[in-house]
Amino acid sequence: MKVLGKAMRSIWVEADGWSVGVIDQTQLPHHFATARLAAADDAARAIRSMLVRGAPLIGATAAYGMCLALRQDASDGALERAYALLVSARPTAVNLRWALDEVRRAVAPLPPPERAAAAYQRAAALCEEDVAINRAIGERGLALLQEAWARRGREGRVNVLTHCNAGWLATVDWGTALAPIYMAHDAGIPVHVWVDETRPRNQGAGLTAWELGQHGVPHTVIADNAGGHLMQHGLVDLCIVGTDRTTARGDVANKIGTYLKALAAKDNGVPFYVALPSPTIDWALQDGVREIPIEQRDGAELCDVTGRLPSGELATVRITPPGSPAENHAFDVTPARLVTALITERGVCEASPDGLRSLFPERTQAGA
Amino acid sequence: MKVLGKAMRSIWVEADGWSVGVIDQTQLPHHFATARLAAADDAARAIRSMLVRGAPLIGATAAYGMCLALRQDASDGALERAYALLVSARPTAVNLRWALDEVRRAVAPLPPPERAAAAYQRAAALCEEDVAINRAIGERGLALLQEAWARRGREGRVNVLTHCNAGWLATVDWGTALAPIYMAHDAGIPVHVWVDETRPRNQGAGLTAWELGQHGVPHTVIADNAGGHLMQHGLVDLCIVGTDRTTARGDVANKIGTYLKALAAKDNGVPFYVALPSPTIDWALQDGVREIPIEQRDGAELCDVTGRLPSGELATVRITPPGSPAENHAFDVTPARLVTALITERGVCEASPDGLRSLFPERTQAGA
Repeated sequence: MKVLGKAMRSIWVEADGWSVGVIDQTQLPHHFATARLAAADDAARAIRSMLVRGAPLIGATAAYGMCLALRQDASDGALERAYALLVSARPTAVNLRWALDEVRRAVAPLPPPERAAAAYQRAAALCEEDVAINRAIGERGLALLQEAWARRGREGRVNVLTHCNAGWLATVDWGTALAPIYMAHDAGIPVHVWVDETRPRNQGAGLTAWELGQHGVPHTVIADNAGGHLMQHGLVDLCIVGTDRTTARGDVANKIGTYLKALAAKDNGVPFYVALPSPTIDWALQDGVREIPIEQRDGAELCDVTGRLPSGELATVRITPPGSPAENHAFDVTPARLVTALITERGVCEASPDGLRSLFPERTQAGA
Repeated sequence: MKVLGKAMRSIWVEADGWSVGVIDQTQLPHHFATARLAAADDAARAIRSMLVRGAPLIGATAAYGMCLALRQDASDGALERAYALLVSARPTAVNLRWALDEVRRAVAPLPPPERAAAAYQRAAALCEEDVAINRAIGERGLALLQEAWARRGREGRVNVLTHCNAGWLATVDWGTALAPIYMAHDAGIPVHVWVDETRPRNQGAGLTAWELGQHGVPHTVIADNAGGHLMQHGLVDLCIVGTDRTTARGDVANKIGTYLKALAAKDNGVPFYVALPSPTIDWALQDGVREIPIEQRDGAELCDVTGRLPSGELATVRITPPGSPAENHAFDVTPARLVTALITERGVCEASPDGLRSLFPERTQAGA
């Protein structure tokens, strides 16, 4: 997607042919800065300190971290040390381990002198696969936006509400929930996005607003509290959100607050779509509310807000009184009954066991 | 309620017998400071710059502003000038105009030398009436908390979720939604309050957390996004919120986001109560979503967050990117079908035309 008018991805190999560039997302939306990763340590640090975030981008960064390590030392010992270093950078990130396994599997059987080149090849392929999946999600979702535009008689604008950041900054390009929006915008549909601020980490106000703005997509930031009111007044045509984990019956775990928006959508007859790459489907789970453990993060994320002072400097202010505790539940689960449809790279389906099996018939046995 | 272990109200006459003290709420929750109002100008400024907020407290401050004016000059001209000054301090505050009318009506027929004393008397009476209404709401609501405690078999704690600040800082004492909570706490029921942060102005994280903490009521600040998740997991026994305006059929306008919590309460079988002084019932309205106009405030309230720097100084940081617009809808309407019951100073009733008429039979004709 575009930044300062120029197409870019969230991760790339630099012109030197080996070092790796990423956007320093901790500075967004206030400063646009990139960082150059020249060793596995740099990649681990970028993941740990959240210069990069979002499961697919973390995976891609880890894969390139392996490349950087093998470039310096391609021995079996170095391979295992790099794996151990990178896998511990965000211990709960499933995608991170998967990407590292992919690279290790590709290079371990090779003689050491061939390993670095093979690792770069595999890392690049992982990135292309991610882009292809998201492009497919975008194309599938685009049809839903075209329908919404037709329902409006091609008058006014199509208002889409989204929560958190499921955009290209979380992936390699396109994003998941935002991919259909970028495609609709690029196709000339007058789409306008209501961007939920997404407390407590403000990924909407910070990252989603920034990436939509850079690509030129009209948008308005709102409080997480506002979506229901907008839907009551006909100001939302559809919702699209991402998900971290989907169960075999279509329950979706996503950023805290998603469930509240889905309730409001249901109450007002607004379609509520969830965009997901199929690897995030957990075929072993059914009842998301009961079975998906929800991460509790530090309450300080709620109490302390970081932003830009009038001077341009970044600062962090505390908004709660001394002695008032805070709890920070990071995700919630939206039951399938509130989800109009799932948008996957294979197509759009009902959020139900049958719906998912219709797109993924190879899972019919496994899902039983 | 208590501050630093000492009982106090949100407004009082100072020991000198004529000047008026208020809490500077713009400094909360970071610094506890009081301000002395010695002239009508001071009172108008306190209202305009939001040292005081909340309809009942604004009314009380305006009433005392009239006293301060009449103390200096009790002529008809001075009376009208003070009225005009104070009524323009927050033009949309209905309670403000009502309180000013009450004082003017009480003093206008009197000879000027008697006016100041009569004004002080009327202002004090207005404060006492507010306290009496809120105490009655507290007593009515206490019964609901006692029931919730009994339903728990008197085990653990009673978890109450509230939104925004409908506490004593918004009134003269007790508050509306928080009055039952203070009474339950004082009566030894182990109540714990989930305090919605309440974006964009953070009245929950700032004011509600502060007043509960000062009075010693256990509480936890949460993101506005979190309530649905807590209810899905049985962590909320009941919700109590305030309201700015209630229709004759029981629809309630309250701080933006209230509707989302009411939806979650309904979806999870959690009782959802609304506490209100009966003067906020608008008997002329029925359908709140269609008939109640919703104030749109400056988007900067969402983009700019004020809090305490590590140095202790207050600062404001911007959380959105340059060029991203924000919208700030201040209230939403929760339809009566989502409200378990209304708590008024006359008792608890169903949120319906019949429910309200059962408590306010004198309105039977007017409400037709």
